[in-house]
Formats: sequence, C-alpha cells, structure tokens
Amino acid sequence: MNILKYPSREEWQKVCTRPHIDNSSLRQLVMNVLDAIRQEGDQAVRRYEKEFDKVELSDLQVSDVELAESDHLVSEELKSSLRLAHQNISRFHASQAYESKRVETCQGVTCWQKSLPVEKVGLYIPGGTAPLFSTVLMLATPARIAGCREIVLCTPPNREGKVNPAILQAAKIAGVSKIFKIGGVQAIGAMAYGTESVPKVYKIFGPGNQFVVCAKQIVSVSDVAIDMPAGPSEVEVVADDSSNASFVAADLLSQAEHGVDSQVLLVTTSESLIEKVVDEISLQLSVLPRKDIASRSLDNSHIVLLRDMDEVMALTNEYAPEHLILATTEAELHAEQVRNAGSVFIGNYSCESAGDYASGTNHTLPTNGYAKAYSGVCLDSFMKRITFQKITSEGILSIGPSVMEMAHNEQLDAHRNAMSVRYNAVKEKN
Amino acid sequence: MNILKYPSREEWQKVCTRPHIDNSSLRQLVMNVLDAIRQEGDQAVRRYEKEFDKVELSDLQVSDVELAESDHLVSEELKSSLRLAHQNISRFHASQAYESKRVETCQGVTCWQKSLPVEKVGLYIPGGTAPLFSTVLMLATPARIAGCREIVLCTPPNREGKVNPAILQAAKIAGVSKIFKIGGVQAIGAMAYGTESVPKVYKIFGPGNQFVVCAKQIVSVSDVAIDMPAGPSEVEVVADDSSNASFVAADLLSQAEHGVDSQVLLVTTSESLIEKVVDEISLQLSVLPRKDIASRSLDNSHIVLLRDMDEVMALTNEYAPEHLILATTEAELHAEQVRNAGSVFIGNYSCESAGDYASGTNHTLPTNGYAKAYSGVCLDSFMKRITFQKITSEGILSIGPSVMEMAHNEQLDAHRNAMSVRYNAVKEKN
Repeated sequence: MNILKYPSREEWQKVCTRPHIDNSSLRQLVMNVLDAIRQEGDQAVRRYEKEFDKVELSDLQVSDVELAESDHLVSEELKSSLRLAHQNISRFHASQAYESKRVETCQGVTCWQKSLPVEKVGLYIPGGTAPLFSTVLMLATPARIAGCREIVLCTPPNREGKVNPAILQAAKIAGVSKIFKIGGVQAIGAMAYGTESVPKVYKIFGPGNQFVVCAKQIVSVSDVAIDMPAGPSEVEVVADDSSNASFVAADLLSQAEHGVDSQVLLVTTSESLIEKVVDEISLQLSVLPRKDIASRSLDNSHIVLLRDMDEVMALTNEYAPEHLILATTEAELHAEQVRNAGSVFIGNYSCESAGDYASGTNHTLPTNGYAKAYSGVCLDSFMKRITFQKITSEGILSIGPSVMEMAHNEQLDAHRNAMSVRYNAVKEKN
Repeated sequence: MNILKYPSREEWQKVCTRPHIDNSSLRQLVMNVLDAIRQEGDQAVRRYEKEFDKVELSDLQVSDVELAESDHLVSEELKSSLRLAHQNISRFHASQAYESKRVETCQGVTCWQKSLPVEKVGLYIPGGTAPLFSTVLMLATPARIAGCREIVLCTPPNREGKVNPAILQAAKIAGVSKIFKIGGVQAIGAMAYGTESVPKVYKIFGPGNQFVVCAKQIVSVSDVAIDMPAGPSEVEVVADDSSNASFVAADLLSQAEHGVDSQVLLVTTSESLIEKVVDEISLQLSVLPRKDIASRSLDNSHIVLLRDMDEVMALTNEYAPEHLILATTEAELHAEQVRNAGSVFIGNYSCESAGDYASGTNHTLPTNGYAKAYSGVCLDSFMKRITFQKITSEGILSIGPSVMEMAHNEQLDAHRNAMSVRYNAVKEKN
C-alpha cells in the first residue's frame, strides 16, 4: 500500500479519484445482443446461452423439481445462516416503510403522497466461481416487503444447465417468483423487453461484469429503471491509536479480495498504527486463498496519515466511500459528521462482513463517489411515490387567482383556462 | 381525437404505447460539446453561448445588481402569486421528511438510516418563448428544504445577455445560491464537470429539449445523478356521466398546448359525455393563442370508451399516466385503485393546472410510462439515505457464525476472517 503522510489538499484529490472505467468499446456488441433479444425473444436468449454459457437449455425457467432438489444440496448450517440473515434483513427493511401525511397546504387544498410497490422487478445475480446468494437475499427480501407482485431472477447456469443450489435456496427463502437460467447481456435484455418466457419488468437490480453494466446503462435510457450505476467495490477504514490493527488489516483485506480493481483506503491520525497494520496485512494475506487478487488491489491502495479527526472526516466526505468503518474511540461522534457514504460501520466490532451478509443492512451500495447523490438499495428502491391532491370549491378560490396569473405569464393560456372555467363556476354559485 | 369504443385488450396496447423518441443522431454532437466543456471550462461555455444563444457574455453569473433590478421588472401580482405557490410547495415538501427508526435486528446488532442532503445540486431551466419560472419553484424549494448547501441554476440568456426577470424572482424566493446565463448542452456539461465559474454538482434536475435530454443521459452514466428520464408531457382524464364536459375539455387542452408531441387521453364509461367533450374542445380551442400546437397534439390523442370503472382503472394502471385527473363521482374510491401514475387529481375541482403551479405538489413527474418505476420529484430527490450499524460483542456472538458460514460458501475467506478475528477475540474474553 502507498503511504501518504500529511498530504496537501491537492494530493487529497488524487486519493479521492477513482479509476475511470470506460466500457464504450463494448457498447456495439452489447447493443447487438440487446436488439436480438428484443426482436427474437427466447430464441435469441437460447442462442446466446449456447454461445456465452456453453449450454443448450430446454427450459429457461428453473422448475419446481430443481428448486426442491436444492433443499438436499445445501447444508443445514448454510440454510440456517440464510434464514438468520433473511430475518435481520427483513426486520431492518420493514422498518423503512414511509408514512405519508395529508397536508392542507392552503384552505381547500389537500395534498398527500402514497408509496406503492414497483409491480415487476428483475434481479440479476452473476455466476462465476462464487455463488452470490447473499445478493439474492439483499434484493429479493426488500422487494417482497415492498409488495412487488412479480420478482424475477436471472442467473447464468453452469455447463450442465444447473443453477447453484445455494442461490436457489436463498431465492426460495426470500420469495422470488420466477428464476431463469439466463446470464449476462441476454438476461438484462430479457427482463427489460420481456420474451415468451421472461416477463418484462419495470426495474432491474443487481451487480455484474462490464457487459452487464453496459447493458443496464443502455436499457435504462428509456426502457426500464435500474438500481444505480456500478463501480468497483471499496472500503475506507478510519482508525486512531485505539484501533485494533488486526481487525483493521482484516477489514482492508476483506475488501481487497473482491477484485484487482477494488479500492481500499486507511485514513488515520496514528502514525504508530500504520506500521502495525502493514505487518498484520502481510501476516493475514499469506494464508488467504485469494491472496493474489488481494495483493494486487492493495498495490493500488492508500494509507493516509492526517493531523486530526476533522481532517479525517473532511477527506472521508470528499471521498464518499461505499463502506466506511469508523474504528475509533469516539466512533459514534464521528458518525455524526458523515455527510457522504454508502454504509457506515461504527466501532471495532462493526465489520463490513457483518453488513455484507447478516446484520440487516443492504450490501448493494453506491461506489465510485456516487454516495454523494445516491442511496444504497433500501425498501424505497422497490417502491415509487405517487402524489394525490383534492381541491374543493374553497380551494379554487384560495389558489385560483395565483394559478391563472402564473399560467398567463408563462404564456400557457389553456392552463389558465382550465382554472378559470372552474373559478368562474365557483364564483357564480357563491 | 381518435375515438375508440370498447377496444380489445390488444388495442389497449396501442393506446398505452408512447411515441419512441430516438436522440441517437444527436449523440456525437452532444458528446463533442460535453468534451469541450470538460477540457476547456468557461472558455468553451462562452464559445457555445456565442454559437447557440447568439450572445457574447462578459460575466456568466447573474450579478446581485441584475437580481435587484428584477424586483422592479416583475408585477406585484406575479410576485405575490409566486410567494403563494412557494408557500404551498414548501408546506407539502416539508411534510415529506423521513423519520428513521433504530432497529435492533438481532441481539447486539443495531441498524438505522439517516437522510442527508445531496450537498450540491444543479437546476436546468430552459429558455424559449415562455419563461418556466414555475419549474424554478418546483426544484429549488425542495432543494432548500432538504438542506442542499449549493443550489446552482443554469438558464439560457436572451440575445441581450439577460435572463427573464420572473425566473430571477422565482430563484430569489426559492433560495437559489448561484444563477448562470448558460443554456443547453453547455449548461449540463458545466454543472456535471464544473468550470472556473460553475461549481460541479452531484445531481442535475430539470427539463429541456432533445439536446439537453441527450446530454443528461450521457453525463448520468458515470459523472452525476439526474432526476429522471424525460419524455413528452401527458394527461389522462377519467370521466363518467357526472363529469363536467367543459372542465374535461379544458384539462385536455391544457396538456395539448404544451407541444405537438404531448399525449392526451380521455377514458370514460359515458358515451354521451364524449360528444359533449368533443364539442367543448372545438369551442375552447378556437380562442386559444396556442391552438395550432394544441390541435396537432389532439390529432394523435385518444378518447377511449370502456364498459365499467374496473376496466377504466385497469387501462389507467397499464398506461401509467404522468398526470391523472379522476373527474368521476366516486373519485376518492378510484384513487385507491391507482397503482401507477405520477400525480393524481381527485374530483371535478382538482385540475392539473393547480398542481402545475400552486397547490403544493411537484410538477416534475415521470412521463412515458416511467411512473411504473419512478417517483416524481419530491423532498427525497434532493437527499440520499446512509445506513449505519453498531455491533457489540454480543452482536458478534449472535451473527458471527452465520456471517462466517456464508462468507466461506461464497469463497470469500478474507470476509470470513474479518469476522473470525473478532469472534475469536470475544470468545477469549468470555
């Protein structure tokens, strides 16, 4: 890791800059696949599954038999862990329900909001070496609490045409409606446009490789909403003299193992801690199965030494980390100063792993500094707000003249007229 | 208007389909302008202002003197209308504040959300013949309530380098921090990347022509968040025998005057009402200043006669209108059946114009069927949620084993290790 001691404000910029990821070279290929799915539906899906996932599928949908089989293929330990995680995620997300108030903004004018589910949502779960069943829980659990009528999940099958049983178990526990053996761009296209088998959804969630990210960007322009823009995962650990070097090292490594482009940042006021953490990293790294990945991402990572906690929190808010671990004595106090972050972990015992799996918070979070404008996935991500208003004849009298004046000044006389026909009718009655 | 009596379900699809707007031919031009702004800053902004808005600007920012001058250039009637509208918009949006709850999801594991302002936001207000000062109120008012630290507004100047004084007054009332005389793609670029004069913002709001829409799409991929995708404005009026044909006609026309691509839809169970509305439209249209625009958009619009209110509400939820006027006797009841819409107006006196200007609801709403997944602009649009969690040593014992089990099964052993170093430490102590 690159150690920066008391960097200048200009050097802060360098620390806060994320690697620019340009997927424009993939754009034409991705668009071709999407166009084919839009035009040919299932036939194109099958063709691309054969080409990219090397499998010829008879049924695209996971059958009830396959779902039942997965009961026996997953250990009791993992199943009960999934259930505990599901319970905690449910509790936290259920607490996020929005209670709208009716407001009389002016005499006779009542306005309110109502939060309603996005009726059909699509979840994408990538394949690859590790089955991301935790992401299934993180997306399907709040979708179910929101009341989404149709929860579609797409995930690539292996060469035998099977989906990882842990993914099936997580989907079962969280209440997914339909699971399809479709991966990559063809999955995004199928959910965005609908095919004979796959229902068209209104919003697509979930991580993926650069092809999936590019496909989500393209369909989000006018076909379907998406959760948020994607970038490599990242953690910032804030530490002081009191922090446990072994815990800090473990947290930095847990992020670094995600991928070679992961971002890991340690910001501290303690010069003595730095050496201890560096030593602990070497110690812990040596026994990690994914040590090659972790050490490559550490090469691009920074340890920053600053003068005081005010500077630390200023840099933190400028960086806007996806995950922020506050491993300081006064962590609660520093948490109050957070203005930009995805998810904050307070104190020595609150590790990112807890939130990644089972504490109850969501792990689908804004990376790449997007935390300055985006929330992580939460109950609201699966709902939309509709506004309602009811205006009485009194209301027409109280706001009518202002509406007519403003409409006239915007040169929209039909807008003025829609109010004046009512205003005149009310005036006549009185 | 095209009258459809008792259409089949297949014909419903036709009614619900919006015109496809393809701005891909503008993409290269827009990207060139954006790239120039990113690289050259103010110098490029000035060059494009000269090229597109035909004006050579000395200062890009509106001065305090210009702001003070606008006090005398706007009538007292309009100023007091702006103040009333601002007051109602403030009241409704202030009521939308989210109150987070702390939840103990598991023994020793506490999670909560906090809603915090997007610190810097940019508002784009188009120019053209009519000054859209109402949109200034609709965007800046909730931004101010949210607590956004910097509220930047860009709007094109006229050929004398001046901004419409009603826009300046609205900006003053609503509390905009900085106003710039910049229009079109160069405005979006300046706010997305920042220049010497214009601060970089984290989220951009506001309507615009196809160039502005395309620019917002491009910068939203990885530089800045945007409010929502754009499409032509639209209204659906639901009416029965009890509805006032003159009001219904006025409402349809108020939408039709927006632009030739506006969408207007009347859905009713009353055959006799249709004739009355058609007659009223001819009558009212003849005296409208924008009758050419309105009659062209009516040519592409539909009146749909259906058997009963269940069918009416089913079609409505499939169409997902931006504005929905329920002008029926049992409007309150039908409002309960709405699942997809931007903003709903209940009863004969609740006209869209009221919500466009002064009732308190926001007029920046999802068009093009996006109401199936998107909310209109509201207080939350200017805020983001951060999640927090605090785990005690008890919490480590309650979720630790599940976290370790799940991490191991996802083949992320550094994730497992981040929990096991803590779990072992807690076990040792006990």
